[in-house]
Amino acid sequence: MWTLYFTPDTIALASLLTLEHVGAPFRIEIVDFTKNAQRSPEYLRLNPKGRVPALVTPSGTLTETPAILQFVAQSFPKAALVPFDDPYLFAEVTSFNSYLCGTVHIAHAHRMRGHRWADDPAAWEAMRKKVPEALTEAFSLIEAGYLRGPWVMGERLSVCDYYLFTIARWLEVDGVDLGKLPRVVEHRARMTALPLAQRVIAQYESQPRSPF
Amino acid sequence: MWTLYFTPDTIALASLLTLEHVGAPFRIEIVDFTKNAQRSPEYLRLNPKGRVPALVTPSGTLTETPAILQFVAQSFPKAALVPFDDPYLFAEVTSFNSYLCGTVHIAHAHRMRGHRWADDPAAWEAMRKKVPEALTEAFSLIEAGYLRGPWVMGERLSVCDYYLFTIARWLEVDGVDLGKLPRVVEHRARMTALPLAQRVIAQYESQPRSPF
Repeated sequence: MWTLYFTPDTIALASLLTLEHVGAPFRIEIVDFTKNAQRSPEYLRLNPKGRVPALVTPSGTLTETPAILQFVAQSFPKAALVPFDDPYLFAEVTSFNSYLCGTVHIAHAHRMRGHRWADDPAAWEAMRKKVPEALTEAFSLIEAGYLRGPWVMGERLSVCDYYLFTIARWLEVDGVDLGKLPRVVEHRARMTALPLAQRVIAQYESQPRSPF
Repeated sequence: MWTLYFTPDTIALASLLTLEHVGAPFRIEIVDFTKNAQRSPEYLRLNPKGRVPALVTPSGTLTETPAILQFVAQSFPKAALVPFDDPYLFAEVTSFNSYLCGTVHIAHAHRMRGHRWADDPAAWEAMRKKVPEALTEAFSLIEAGYLRGPWVMGERLSVCDYYLFTIARWLEVDGVDLGKLPRVVEHRARMTALPLAQRVIAQYESQPRSPF
């Protein structure tokens, strides 16, 4: 049995959707950001990064969305959520996830988490102002090619879809012009229509889309 | 035959070292940042991100360091640079690389690349000022646990070592207090002593450590 440390309206949704997709036996522990629970001594013992998600397994605790998605997919190979046996395609999955992790999610984080990278509130405001432009640029590359359609990797749904979907739910509050991203928006609608996504979002996520 | 698009004194060193380690047949194309070659139409056709590294293969062009390292390791399984067959250990490798990609390298990039996240030069300066603190915090987690020793994953060298080493070469110019990171510094010395690292660095990297 695994335990997912999860906070609604965060990147942890991608891990939750992937766990649900494969039918993994797991339980959820909610990490309440409104109580700063991610910085509590108990949670920091579990995950010194003080972030979500974290997946506690009998082997140890995993952090970082790309790693959790990969681990869940490899642990349930019949779901075929990652093409592990094709080194090039598998690397494309990792490349896509790395881009979300290191560029897209980071661009988003500059709207609310400027304190990570500067102490000056004026700098936070300057970062916040640039979020729509930086995110539009990043999503434009996804629109133009990395999203093959109908799913990210083409004909087959993969972990990339859950990861992209999670971040794409924030496009409006991030101030991105959706008119430039018809394929991304179409993908998001396709994901939103999945019964699994509807059920998980209704149960755990804020309605409407939250500003996190 | 693969082609690595490489720029000295950048994160591309991790890919170059990994390619050399496995003995892959490849050639190098230098992308000259001083001529803004990463933004040339030719390069953008190859890699729309306008960054390095990029690895051109017969199947397509790969970007993002975690993906290139994984692809090279999986293509040369005898080198055993990634524990692909153990889902948990493999996820730990991916977790470590994701942390370098999404947190550590990003913290470093705020010293020279503030224009990615703000338009105001005063904000760039505010970001620059916080780099030593943000990087010290990130490296402290590596020091305290993620770096098992003697190599990142323990007794066995992995792609994580080349990735960590590449970023750790910038610690001084990033203003990090090395006194707080004895294990990281020891790991860096161990990596620097590898004949492979000595040869590659002598041939391609600036001496002394560059400010990129």
